[in-house]
Amino acid sequence: MKSVGLIVEYNPFHNGHYYHMQESIKQTGADLAIAVMSGYFLQRGEPAMVSKWLRTKMALEGGADIVIELPYAFSTGKAEIFANGAISLLTALQTDEICFGSEAGSIEPFEHTIDFLAQHRESYEEKLRTFMAEGYSFPKAASLAFQGLDRNGKTIDLSKPNNILGFHYVKAILNQESSVKASTIPRTGANFHDPDLGEQKIASATGIRNAILAGNEPLKAIRRVVPDITYNLLQEAQEAFGTFHSWEKLYPYLKYRLLTSNPQELAQIYEMEEGLEYRLLKQIKQADSFTSFMKQVKTKRYTWTRLQRLCVHVLTNTTKKEMAPLLEIPKASYIRLLGMSEKGQTYLNRIKKNLELPLVSTLSQHVDPLLDLDKRAADCYALGFPEAVRTGKLQEEYSTPPIRKL
Amino acid sequence: MKSVGLIVEYNPFHNGHYYHMQESIKQTGADLAIAVMSGYFLQRGEPAMVSKWLRTKMALEGGADIVIELPYAFSTGKAEIFANGAISLLTALQTDEICFGSEAGSIEPFEHTIDFLAQHRESYEEKLRTFMAEGYSFPKAASLAFQGLDRNGKTIDLSKPNNILGFHYVKAILNQESSVKASTIPRTGANFHDPDLGEQKIASATGIRNAILAGNEPLKAIRRVVPDITYNLLQEAQEAFGTFHSWEKLYPYLKYRLLTSNPQELAQIYEMEEGLEYRLLKQIKQADSFTSFMKQVKTKRYTWTRLQRLCVHVLTNTTKKEMAPLLEIPKASYIRLLGMSEKGQTYLNRIKKNLELPLVSTLSQHVDPLLDLDKRAADCYALGFPEAVRTGKLQEEYSTPPIRKL
Repeated sequence: MKSVGLIVEYNPFHNGHYYHMQESIKQTGADLAIAVMSGYFLQRGEPAMVSKWLRTKMALEGGADIVIELPYAFSTGKAEIFANGAISLLTALQTDEICFGSEAGSIEPFEHTIDFLAQHRESYEEKLRTFMAEGYSFPKAASLAFQGLDRNGKTIDLSKPNNILGFHYVKAILNQESSVKASTIPRTGANFHDPDLGEQKIASATGIRNAILAGNEPLKAIRRVVPDITYNLLQEAQEAFGTFHSWEKLYPYLKYRLLTSNPQELAQIYEMEEGLEYRLLKQIKQADSFTSFMKQVKTKRYTWTRLQRLCVHVLTNTTKKEMAPLLEIPKASYIRLLGMSEKGQTYLNRIKKNLELPLVSTLSQHVDPLLDLDKRAADCYALGFPEAVRTGKLQEEYSTPPIRKL
Repeated sequence: MKSVGLIVEYNPFHNGHYYHMQESIKQTGADLAIAVMSGYFLQRGEPAMVSKWLRTKMALEGGADIVIELPYAFSTGKAEIFANGAISLLTALQTDEICFGSEAGSIEPFEHTIDFLAQHRESYEEKLRTFMAEGYSFPKAASLAFQGLDRNGKTIDLSKPNNILGFHYVKAILNQESSVKASTIPRTGANFHDPDLGEQKIASATGIRNAILAGNEPLKAIRRVVPDITYNLLQEAQEAFGTFHSWEKLYPYLKYRLLTSNPQELAQIYEMEEGLEYRLLKQIKQADSFTSFMKQVKTKRYTWTRLQRLCVHVLTNTTKKEMAPLLEIPKASYIRLLGMSEKGQTYLNRIKKNLELPLVSTLSQHVDPLLDLDKRAADCYALGFPEAVRTGKLQEEYSTPPIRKL
């Protein structure tokens, strides 16, 4: 049984994801697809629009056979940490091959880029320091430093977001000496962060989220660019809760946390650096929405994503002290099963006795510092729901068994 | 100009408070009345129903000439701390005499009780320890220990709540070597914590709050037992915000704080003792209201008030470390002016140059660790308002000048 691994967020699952899923299966000749999916908080430092359970259903209907949660510590990390966490899970699940979407579209340039950077490490790092000193954000400085090297024509363009992720997947496989093979397919139809929906059947998730949050009849606007299952589940969620989850729902708690913390306490939060705590404290009282808060806090030195991730860590009270041992070797220590098809179940039964990591089916069963973060993230996410459903939502996370697609 | 000092909460100001104010002025022959009033959080560990500004207006209309805020560190403290903070402020304001309501009704038995306890300290403390060891709460054990002594007939009944407060006022005056004279008048019409409104024109504040929170037409129910000004201001508040402030409004934040804190962090909160943090953490996820949370947490050993105060400190993130230096000598370090009449202003102008403490008129002017707690308390209180008014409420506390009654 050949398996292909996908690393995803599905916020929400759209036609582009469906295309990627089907193409990955076809191109790798896989018998089953394993999706490692971020839970409640995503790499851009945002809460997911809908719960991990709805997104798991979307993934299963879209063709995934096993859906595994990427733990909070990795799902909200920078590309390198995100990639290492995901690869470690796919390795533990004995995945044969990963297949990621990229702007480059073929795998060799990724390997060349890793070699090239290893050979030119000193000059790369010198350029990186120079650009950082000029006030550029880390990702921008890294991209500029790389572009500034005398490249050999075989490297990828590291200013493209999917190339960056792919680069780190391939690098994580090398570093972890993983047996997983890497392949890639070209991204099609929409750029990663296109703000608009465009005219085609494929739009970016960013464009879809913007359309949903802006529109009067939000779901009508996205009908064309998502599969039926996504449309139906989003409609259910809208009927149940009125709106979709967003940072604005959680902003009162972020505001409360900041207003009741002193700079010394905030300095202990993971990713709080260079006196950012004073910047946050200075702006929080005036800002009456998360968006206006972020606009006040934003500078050239920090990307929006970097600051949003920091806010997620403030919200969940994730400290440097608790993250340090988890990221020393950024690998998962358990496999949290969110859902499976019949084929997925057969596969899991087959590899079960050789699994190196414990398979966690419900949260209440397992104790692990890495899982503590997932629990806190789930609790914070639930508090953003209207009061009436909050308590139920808090329980849901602890009692929901993996979703089965028959 | 003779001044009389009153120590109050006015939650809300009712006919009994009006009676006490007028009787105190009459009995002491005072020319003006100074009220030291708790701010947003009260001695029973609850948020005030309406803001300190509305309650200041009530106080001024009811006959007070100067309204001063009792800082958070004292207003949410046990009787001894509460009394010491209040007496230190009245002393700083050169008040001639305080006049408190009590079940005993005359001042000599209070002085006798202090003498008596000083003489029988050892046997009192031994009995206190015995009752504590039997699992009684501190106030209950203290009352039982006192009753168990062979008393001389001249002491007061220390199981009565107003006698306890009065006892600590008189004791604080002695300990602080204050020049303030103490007098008392009998409480009339309603017991301190009577849960019902009764038939008379005087009802307990507890009864009034219960009627307001329970009723369909809450203000109609209390019309008979509050002055016009209270009725009108409560009506305004109800129209503006729909309901009145209560623990339930702040419960989402308490829940969030507990769900994102570990036992070690909670152990640092002021008044967190004997592993109470584990008790709170165990119950918080299930409880969908503050009341049901408290019912789950309550035991014989801890009074409801004690636990509510602890929850206030969790909410405001008030730590043992920051309280220790403030309570070493529990005295105020500033005078926060909330309101004054013309007569009050004349008095303040007269004593201004001899004041031992700074007079603070707006929050933004002054820096003091004691005041930091007032600011955090104000911020937390404001977060309980509906989203639309929250930011305005946050600003209000920092920019509102003292209220003037002309």
